[in-house]
Amino acid sequence: MDKRGILVVVSGFSGAGKGTIMKRLLEDYSDSYALSISATTRLPRPGESHGREYFFVSKEEFEEMIEEDALIEYARYVNNYYGTPKDYVFRELEAGRDVILEIEIQGALKVKEAYPDTLLLFVSPPSAGELKDRLMNRGTEDIAAIESRLNRAWQEAQGVENYDYFVINDDLEECVQEINNIIKNEHARVARNHAVIENIRAELKSFAKGD
Amino acid sequence: MDKRGILVVVSGFSGAGKGTIMKRLLEDYSDSYALSISATTRLPRPGESHGREYFFVSKEEFEEMIEEDALIEYARYVNNYYGTPKDYVFRELEAGRDVILEIEIQGALKVKEAYPDTLLLFVSPPSAGELKDRLMNRGTEDIAAIESRLNRAWQEAQGVENYDYFVINDDLEECVQEINNIIKNEHARVARNHAVIENIRAELKSFAKGD
Repeated sequence: MDKRGILVVVSGFSGAGKGTIMKRLLEDYSDSYALSISATTRLPRPGESHGREYFFVSKEEFEEMIEEDALIEYARYVNNYYGTPKDYVFRELEAGRDVILEIEIQGALKVKEAYPDTLLLFVSPPSAGELKDRLMNRGTEDIAAIESRLNRAWQEAQGVENYDYFVINDDLEECVQEINNIIKNEHARVARNHAVIENIRAELKSFAKGD
Repeated sequence: MDKRGILVVVSGFSGAGKGTIMKRLLEDYSDSYALSISATTRLPRPGESHGREYFFVSKEEFEEMIEEDALIEYARYVNNYYGTPKDYVFRELEAGRDVILEIEIQGALKVKEAYPDTLLLFVSPPSAGELKDRLMNRGTEDIAAIESRLNRAWQEAQGVENYDYFVINDDLEECVQEINNIIKNEHARVARNHAVIENIRAELKSFAKGD
């Protein structure tokens, strides 16, 4: 069994319940997983604190991180930077914890390109109708805003083929369990066990010769 | 979630406990799995019955199956044919059951070539030393026979890189659970859910337009 942690990206349509799933996964299996914390140049909202929701940094600090190649991926939205600092992620992976990045599809594909052994999970409601219903039932947005979200979801859905797993969030408990199983099983992939296999092979060879 | 069953090949070193694992998997999850039954031209041994351990057929019948392309794979050992009839396997897959073939590495690679979406699992003891100990402790074979088995295991270990998962059988319960999870999760692979994804995409598109 591979001892090093696995880099896992979880993406999904807004309204798929990704936030709730992540929270439960980290609560239920706190020894196995670490959630990557992004750095951003946007200002903290009420209740957000540095090092919990985000690392809040200045534009100059962020651009220094870009220059020093200290970020796994980053993007600029509106006038703010968002990115994933390497430091914390690599330290956790070395410690044997699987590190989860909760990022959108463009970021996910950049991470996969830079680190091809990243595991990509996409979380979806059982159907688009269910997604629409969930967004409507929140009651916080008007119909135009909901349509814009559904349009965004449609655009995002173009890239799903690049993911490894398409996980349907129908029942929360089952979904959390399934994601935990997928990540756990990933450690048993042949591609992640070359050293283990090589050891057994070398040992078998010495036995077969009667050493 | 993909409804069609998955074709699963389970291979492993002799002494890895594969037989016991398969038996438990089929007992514990009898609704999910079907074990493929091979056809062979060798004679039944005491206690074996037609349609349980094997379909026992004549050389002529077997060669007719080859001619009619009615076998997923077949091989000839010593003077006997062994092969996997398509008929039963495809019927079970269509019924939504995952079908397990317990075959050795050469057969496994032939199946994967003919049916690229086959899931290949390789079961191994935790170490080669453990494999040797298990073979010794059986007390049924002399040291030369054990060395020949270990030599065969070494040869088999050459092809392990072609498998998808390398499952270590340390604790039987955990191993059965792990194999069950691996097969279950395989249904959530993006590559097995193109139709589901396409449906959601089409529905999202119609919503985004405000249809």
